Amino acid sequence: MAQAAEPASGTRDFLADDVRRRERAFTTVREVFERYGFDPLVTPAFERLDVLTGKYGDEGDKLIFKILRRGEHEASGEADLALRYDLTVPLARVVATYGNRLPTPYKRYALGSVWRADRPGRGRFREFTQCDVDTVGSTSPLADAEILWAIHDALEALGIEQFRFEINSRQALFGLLDAYGVPADLGGRVLITLDKLDKLDPDAVSAELVERGLATATASALVADLASDDPDRVRKQLDGTEQGRAGLAEVDRLVELTAGLPAGRVAFTPRMVRGLDYYTGPIFEVSATGYPGSIASGGRYDGLVAALGGPDVPACGGSIGIERILASQQPSETEARGLDVAITVLGAEADLTALAAALRSAGLRVGVYLGSSGKLAKQLKWANDQRARFAVLYGRDEQADGAVTIRDMHSGDQERIAFTQAAAYLAARVRGD
Amino acid sequence: MAQAAEPASGTRDFLADDVRRRERAFTTVREVFERYGFDPLVTPAFERLDVLTGKYGDEGDKLIFKILRRGEHEASGEADLALRYDLTVPLARVVATYGNRLPTPYKRYALGSVWRADRPGRGRFREFTQCDVDTVGSTSPLADAEILWAIHDALEALGIEQFRFEINSRQALFGLLDAYGVPADLGGRVLITLDKLDKLDPDAVSAELVERGLATATASALVADLASDDPDRVRKQLDGTEQGRAGLAEVDRLVELTAGLPAGRVAFTPRMVRGLDYYTGPIFEVSATGYPGSIASGGRYDGLVAALGGPDVPACGGSIGIERILASQQPSETEARGLDVAITVLGAEADLTALAAALRSAGLRVGVYLGSSGKLAKQLKWANDQRARFAVLYGRDEQADGAVTIRDMHSGDQERIAFTQAAAYLAARVRGD
Repeated sequence: MAQAAEPASGTRDFLADDVRRRERAFTTVREVFERYGFDPLVTPAFERLDVLTGKYGDEGDKLIFKILRRGEHEASGEADLALRYDLTVPLARVVATYGNRLPTPYKRYALGSVWRADRPGRGRFREFTQCDVDTVGSTSPLADAEILWAIHDALEALGIEQFRFEINSRQALFGLLDAYGVPADLGGRVLITLDKLDKLDPDAVSAELVERGLATATASALVADLASDDPDRVRKQLDGTEQGRAGLAEVDRLVELTAGLPAGRVAFTPRMVRGLDYYTGPIFEVSATGYPGSIASGGRYDGLVAALGGPDVPACGGSIGIERILASQQPSETEARGLDVAITVLGAEADLTALAAALRSAGLRVGVYLGSSGKLAKQLKWANDQRARFAVLYGRDEQADGAVTIRDMHSGDQERIAFTQAAAYLAARVRGD
Repeated sequence: MAQAAEPASGTRDFLADDVRRRERAFTTVREVFERYGFDPLVTPAFERLDVLTGKYGDEGDKLIFKILRRGEHEASGEADLALRYDLTVPLARVVATYGNRLPTPYKRYALGSVWRADRPGRGRFREFTQCDVDTVGSTSPLADAEILWAIHDALEALGIEQFRFEINSRQALFGLLDAYGVPADLGGRVLITLDKLDKLDPDAVSAELVERGLATATASALVADLASDDPDRVRKQLDGTEQGRAGLAEVDRLVELTAGLPAGRVAFTPRMVRGLDYYTGPIFEVSATGYPGSIASGGRYDGLVAALGGPDVPACGGSIGIERILASQQPSETEARGLDVAITVLGAEADLTALAAALRSAGLRVGVYLGSSGKLAKQLKWANDQRARFAVLYGRDEQADGAVTIRDMHSGDQERIAFTQAAAYLAARVRGD
């Protein structure tokens, strides 16, 4: 049974404390997105298979969980449905489904599970939560800036203290290639290598560029400028090409429209590439002290909705790496939730049921002993296991006196209160009056 | 594209207002269950196929969505995973997985999607939300009563006004068969027919009983007593058999322990059978004025966790028909959420971004115009579409004066405020100061 009882490979059960911690984080993010006027969207766990296939490349397609046809078609072994692989394709499908019945622009956030048949590993799951915020139908730089603001506020609300948006622009990147005379056919591969500058040392990156076919002098100049951490060196180069200037203008506009954020939170980072090639405008990644890799990212992707089966509309958005953040944060004491009041049972169940009801009406979290032991010590052990703040004792003595004994489970102090006063007294104690 | 863009058959997209309405109901229920000391449990969307098969009968098994093996095994057309069909089998699996690492008793609630390959129809979906509350590991009647209390409070909190728990006991039902001399081999079928007394008229039920092989006199007496709505007639009969007395004792104990609920909320209903044959003790169904069928149900099912692959532990629980309730309730005006403040954009974007940030810090929901029109009328139409309470206008005049115009979108009234006062003023207006 042991093995049979495990959750499926790569999936997790979330017991009470985990659920509360995760839900608290999710609620925090939702509240921020709501303040920005983003609307929630919930789509089904599965889509028709053809909605998903061909959207994630060959490698991605292999990781899609496919669902067998039902009924008489089951024996065919064919699939007609698939679990969603991300939240972006469902967004594109919704934009196609509802068209102009959606607000324009359509600003939505989505927080939900996605499923990928990846090889499970440390921190890599087959079911995990994504957290996306996107604006579909606006070309305004205010829309790009708003994504950064919203993600910024969400990260702050999640308790992340030191973090920075590294921003760049796809146009600036193409301008960069142009300015340094990188042959067009090498462009993509050069960018992929340059993206490693945050992990590898400059010489290694240079060497890889040369290996990929770039002239040694070009490679060295490019890497020296990008690795210098002085964006002005790159800026000068970009100023020399039309696309470079257009990219710089995008970056500068984004900096201007996020100037209200705390100092140092946004930095032009010319070497930041973002792996995904569907971006068409400004792009960003967030790195934070104490967290591995990037904890949020995004950008403008004007052609993507159409490529994913939706109408041809501009769009920009971002995603918070909520699983990565949750994995790096220590659970805090306050997230574990015990009982406010544990009611022991030594007879007179109807009285205690009424007391429990009164306490719950006052908003308290109340448990009644449901075990089979008539021994108070065993019941108090249960109260302790339940992390109860107070326990109610109502034995024969108390019943005869019309009183209850209230035990402070932290100090062990006990006091006797009239039964009729017990609810008000406990509610006040729990509230800390 | 139209057809291609639909969500998969039997599934639904939830846009903003629907998400908010559903989430509000879910939160309401969760808060009530938390007050009773139930803990949340979230399990994966899919389980290993063998965890689910054979648990729902032949008909149920056919409705399980199966997931194809991945990788090299995909071509086999075999499934190794399946989407969860209910929340009870995952609970049994969790009890098996974690054993004594769970609290004793284990009181949990779960609110989540389940998937069934049913033929989609009016109110019948392939993806829908279930809402369960269960106590595993207690034989105490207080545990049974607590389920009723918790569901009662949840239904009240959901705004349901007139509803009634019809309670009965499996033991009482078997005592009933005994008391009326129903042959043992007819028992199951007789109960199934008697369950129809809330839909069919007594003569039709009598006729069906006779058709199923019951003597005419027995059928008539049984139906007359059960249909009389005078439980004392049945009570007298039950008093004549041992099992009947045991059943009555269970029912009476449950009535005693729910005596604190509003009058008329709990009624012994001898004809109430509950279709599912895994119940072993008290059972209940909730009917409500204005809602079709039953909106909640449950009971004690001591053998079920073991039968579903878990350890042999007693259990009781209930389920709220949250989809049915949501379908019967009209969306209220207050659930639609518009913007508190819509900021129009006629230049000076950085100023407006700062104003938006100040308003959001005050907790307001703020949208900034992201469209391409420079015409105020068009921007005000957008503000109106966003159901904005107020709009901010900041044209050349205002910019020159260091002021903003604030438009009350309900009345159309406009007033001019110093730019530096705008955030405080709007926050106060929205709060209704």
